[in-house]
Amino acid sequence: MLHQTFIVIPRRGDCMPAAPVVASGDKAVMAIEIEATMRTREMMDTHPAQVSLDRDLLARTVDALVACSQACTACADACLSEEMVSELRTCIRLNLDCADICGATARMLSRHTGSHADRTRAQLQACSQVCRSCGDECRRHAEAHDHCRIGAEACRACDEAGNELLAAIS
Amino acid sequence: MLHQTFIVIPRRGDCMPAAPVVASGDKAVMAIEIEATMRTREMMDTHPAQVSLDRDLLARTVDALVACSQACTACADACLSEEMVSELRTCIRLNLDCADICGATARMLSRHTGSHADRTRAQLQACSQVCRSCGDECRRHAEAHDHCRIGAEACRACDEAGNELLAAIS
Amino acid sequence: MLHQTFIVIPRRGDCMPAAPVVASGDKAVMAIEIEATMRTREMMDTHPAQVSLDRDLLARTVDALVACSQACTACADACLSEEMVSELRTCIRLNLDCADICGATARMLSRHTGSHADRTRAQLQACSQVCRSCGDECRRHAEAHDHCRIGAEACRACDEAGNELLAAIS
Amino acid sequence: MLHQTFIVIPRRGDCMPAAPVVASGDKAVMAIEIEATMRTREMMDTHPAQVSLDRDLLARTVDALVACSQACTACADACLSEEMVSELRTCIRLNLDCADICGATARMLSRHTGSHADRTRAQLQACSQVCRSCGDECRRHAEAHDHCRIGAEACRACDEAGNELLAAIS
Repeated sequence: MLHQTFIVIPRRGDCMPAAPVVASGDKAVMAIEIEATMRTREMMDTHPAQVSLDRDLLARTVDALVACSQACTACADACLSEEMVSELRTCIRLNLDCADICGATARMLSRHTGSHADRTRAQLQACSQVCRSCGDECRRHAEAHDHCRIGAEACRACDEAGNELLAAIS
Repeated sequence: MLHQTFIVIPRRGDCMPAAPVVASGDKAVMAIEIEATMRTREMMDTHPAQVSLDRDLLARTVDALVACSQACTACADACLSEEMVSELRTCIRLNLDCADICGATARMLSRHTGSHADRTRAQLQACSQVCRSCGDECRRHAEAHDHCRIGAEACRACDEAGNELLAAIS
Repeated sequence: MLHQTFIVIPRRGDCMPAAPVVASGDKAVMAIEIEATMRTREMMDTHPAQVSLDRDLLARTVDALVACSQACTACADACLSEEMVSELRTCIRLNLDCADICGATARMLSRHTGSHADRTRAQLQACSQVCRSCGDECRRHAEAHDHCRIGAEACRACDEAGNELLAAIS
Repeated sequence: MLHQTFIVIPRRGDCMPAAPVVASGDKAVMAIEIEATMRTREMMDTHPAQVSLDRDLLARTVDALVACSQACTACADACLSEEMVSELRTCIRLNLDCADICGATARMLSRHTGSHADRTRAQLQACSQVCRSCGDECRRHAEAHDHCRIGAEACRACDEAGNELLAAIS
């Protein structure tokens, strides 16, 4: 994982952090390559349709949903590997629900049907309920299991992004 | 979570959150905190099970698969919005296939069944075929449509990560 | 497709309709093979957990959701193949949304989290909105395209089953 | 939609809706109307595109994949509810893999990309491996758990349909 600090002069079309030029003082001295995984914002920017919602907010919400879906899928499997799996049944179940609902919500939002306020609002509200339930359950095991702590963070970040988008729609 | 501190001079089209302008030497720049969305590597690191494969490689592959799945979902919708949609039917269809197959492969790899070499190899090979087909088709429209150019990049990055993992399994 | 009437003496464990014995009068004269696809109700019946909701209603809803998800996936592809695809963009988009949301809702209900009334209610309500929107759009093209007529039926059946379950929860 | 009129003498464990008893000759039997949920074959028949593969075989395979995906999702949850969950970890994991891979394969086949022989063959082969692994594991628990017996049946039926389609492609 990356932990460096650097000065970047991005080029047009770059999706940070991609091939930044690191400068020391007033001139570039080296370039380092970092892989940009998600391209959601770039996709939003190049979508030909008119988008009624803020594209940056929409992209951040989709990324948070996708990240939460993946984190919950991984947390479910990690819980399943714990010795005390029998005490983690509810956490596994909620992780699987949250993974499915967040994944479907991300796909829906990626289709720019976000303009259909009622439909999007209803799905975001349902998704928020699952994220809160799953996050609360993960938090109960955060002390004992790091993967549950990370899962709880992913759920919280996802719920926050979703609620920000909800506020923009309503 | 992964935090990077950038001092950047943003250009139009960069997908970075807005941030306050601060001084750095003699330049006006922006200092921003970027929170990495995906937590895949952290999840891998906190998984209690023994993992036969390199966790970093596994995490990078999962992230590439998830990013490709999302990019293809978005590209399919962008293609659907283009005036010449009738010329993009194959691209839309392949985008949807690639989104589904990459998404399922990411979930499978997240379950650490990666140790089951034959099963994982077969799915990664099938996924690689879809990524190549989808990437080739997207590339044919990359000049005309930026979202197809980005989609092609996502497919290429995903195929490369998958092949690296395949090499590690075989 | 099948339209025959016959007399069946099922064997223990059969999920109708599977390999029935057709009898004429008081003795078996022929056996015909029909494929039993969904096993949802059997799975519900053999689930060890206590289920707060009626298992038959739950199973019928899951089957309607799964069938709607599949029908919408197929309708989207059929629309994409139509000469007038440009007039079917909204239908394709709604079909894809409906396929994703119904699929995720079916998985959620299959996890017997149905006992969590609030969460299930919110997702069923969101799902109902997508089914209605998709069904209405499909209906607009039902005269011109049989696959849209069938898609509209699938959405209606799914919405009805979901609302029946909603009534049982509330 | 598919309607069949059965005159049946049900046994415990049959998954049929309750129905009024009526007389047929000298036997007490039940007359029931079963509404087929899936509309896959109808969708195939109304798809405007030329399909290189037999539509009936394609529809049966898609239905078997969808049914297997649903059965495995339900079996994973049922296993998770069993007292001896710790002995069912592998079964749960394989159920979840099988559910995801079969679901994605069903969507891919629904898109009539079946004409792309290499891509479809590779995905069907990967899917067959997961179905066999999952079916074998479920079978090991079939005596102890009916849901595993049903899951094993669903995997076997899915693998058989997939192999029949594979033979038609190759």
